[in-house]
Amino acid sequence: MGHEPTQLVALDLVGTFVFALSGSLTAVRARLDLFGVLVLGTVTAIGGGILRDTLLGRTPPAALRHWYYLAVPATAALVVFFWHPAVARLRRTAIVFDAAGLGLFTVTGTRLALETGVGYAGATVLGLLTGIGGGVLRDILVREIPSVLVRGELYAVASVVGAGLVCLGDALDVLGVPWSIACATAVFALRIGAVRRHWQVPQARFTEDQAGA
Amino acid sequence: MGHEPTQLVALDLVGTFVFALSGSLTAVRARLDLFGVLVLGTVTAIGGGILRDTLLGRTPPAALRHWYYLAVPATAALVVFFWHPAVARLRRTAIVFDAAGLGLFTVTGTRLALETGVGYAGATVLGLLTGIGGGVLRDILVREIPSVLVRGELYAVASVVGAGLVCLGDALDVLGVPWSIACATAVFALRIGAVRRHWQVPQARFTEDQAGA
Amino acid sequence: MGHEPTQLVALDLVGTFVFALSGSLTAVRARLDLFGVLVLGTVTAIGGGILRDTLLGRTPPAALRHWYYLAVPATAALVVFFWHPAVARLRRTAIVFDAAGLGLFTVTGTRLALETGVGYAGATVLGLLTGIGGGVLRDILVREIPSVLVRGELYAVASVVGAGLVCLGDALDVLGVPWSIACATAVFALRIGAVRRHWQVPQARFTEDQAGA
Repeated sequence: MGHEPTQLVALDLVGTFVFALSGSLTAVRARLDLFGVLVLGTVTAIGGGILRDTLLGRTPPAALRHWYYLAVPATAALVVFFWHPAVARLRRTAIVFDAAGLGLFTVTGTRLALETGVGYAGATVLGLLTGIGGGVLRDILVREIPSVLVRGELYAVASVVGAGLVCLGDALDVLGVPWSIACATAVFALRIGAVRRHWQVPQARFTEDQAGA
Repeated sequence: MGHEPTQLVALDLVGTFVFALSGSLTAVRARLDLFGVLVLGTVTAIGGGILRDTLLGRTPPAALRHWYYLAVPATAALVVFFWHPAVARLRRTAIVFDAAGLGLFTVTGTRLALETGVGYAGATVLGLLTGIGGGVLRDILVREIPSVLVRGELYAVASVVGAGLVCLGDALDVLGVPWSIACATAVFALRIGAVRRHWQVPQARFTEDQAGA
Repeated sequence: MGHEPTQLVALDLVGTFVFALSGSLTAVRARLDLFGVLVLGTVTAIGGGILRDTLLGRTPPAALRHWYYLAVPATAALVVFFWHPAVARLRRTAIVFDAAGLGLFTVTGTRLALETGVGYAGATVLGLLTGIGGGVLRDILVREIPSVLVRGELYAVASVVGAGLVCLGDALDVLGVPWSIACATAVFALRIGAVRRHWQVPQARFTEDQAGA
């Protein structure tokens, strides 16, 4: 990421900060101690990127090589630890930032994966993993089924669509900064639209007597 | 795996398909949404291989480099999502296929590990991880204690025996396609025998007053 | 670790053994079968080191390349499986050994990370991960919120302090065997002191009506 324009790094850190807020709030609700709040905030913020880098063989992961990827989540965690009632009240603001983070992480993840030559299917999975991986780890650590798998909300699907658009841009050979921004915006718009208009992912019909074994 | 004979890749994909069926059924029972069914099916099918490749430093993992390792589980997940009562009724058939997948994944995993020079103990662990890793991740994601650790069924032990036989073949310098098939068959036979005859893995005797701290 | 003095390897194996005892006891309490006891003991003992090596790109991880890193936890697991009431009675002894393991794993982890050039923040995280990673995996596998995040005990903090001291030694260019031993001793002393004097990590104040969403 060393060659990335400064704006992109800045946006990446905004995403990191917001994801860390979400993880830290979960930690406070699960009554973790100060250390648990720091860990959960950090894991939520950089977990997806670390999984992506490790799977791509880009080790050590960027988030462990640059101090600011650890300082930003730590700051967010301390803010939540000391002022969590105020932060919790900003819930609607947090959803907006979270959607921005999702869009941004999806796009950077997919682009990095494409550079490693994993092909479009793999790059889409890795873009998605960058976007939702931190949240999945957060939920596992507090012993919840990952919300992204269960709620029927259009969250991961927005990320998949964005990753697909990045791949489309690559196939059409138009994948630059403007296209990337358009993809991140598409994820953001889909996610916010889903929250406002309650778009749902379908669930399988299921009756108790089908549960079988 | 590019140099592997076509039959082996085909068998590998059969294993992938069957493991994906098992993961998707678990997802439907846990009432995940469509996206959750896709994720759980895919993770169950390719999770073990991804863990193995990552630990061996073979990155990006094969399952992310070839589209069919993602297309096959996605197909299985869609089949389950739309026809899960029918699939659930095929439970006995599924156990047979699952045993075949376990045998195959164990053998490929152990052989790949041996090529990387980790030694027999490490290769056995990695063969086992290839066989059961996807199922362990599946159970963690739906917040269950991995069934392979708890049920007393002879499942993982069958995989360990198979991995050991692969290592034996390597030590005797007879490890080729026939020996590999024999090892996979041994895992299959052990597993099916265990299901039919209720062979059990022992549990520690444990009384409440021993629980101590 | 091949160039490490024999004493350090010996101490590392002591840490491995004690961590394996703790994992196996957890497995017996969770009523896992014999295989589950072996897996949980092994994962607790070598999980942290495997995570560290994988994130650093040192693959295959040392614990999979040397048979004794697998034989030692397996032995500990068998001891617990057959004599767990006796082992459980040695609880106070176990806490002492566990503190020694924590100190040692923290120091080796941080030093290995520094050699890979991840910087002080990353090295501290990786030292901590080496120390507590196995225990976190153990708790996830038996479906508990990792005790290190929740109990308010000064456990992880001791590890962070030790990792920080290793980094300080590196910055002052005095990081050799004596300094390393001093750092491991500091972790040990902090941990034992915390157990004896009930030093606590603070928790966020939290009232039900703040739970919000």
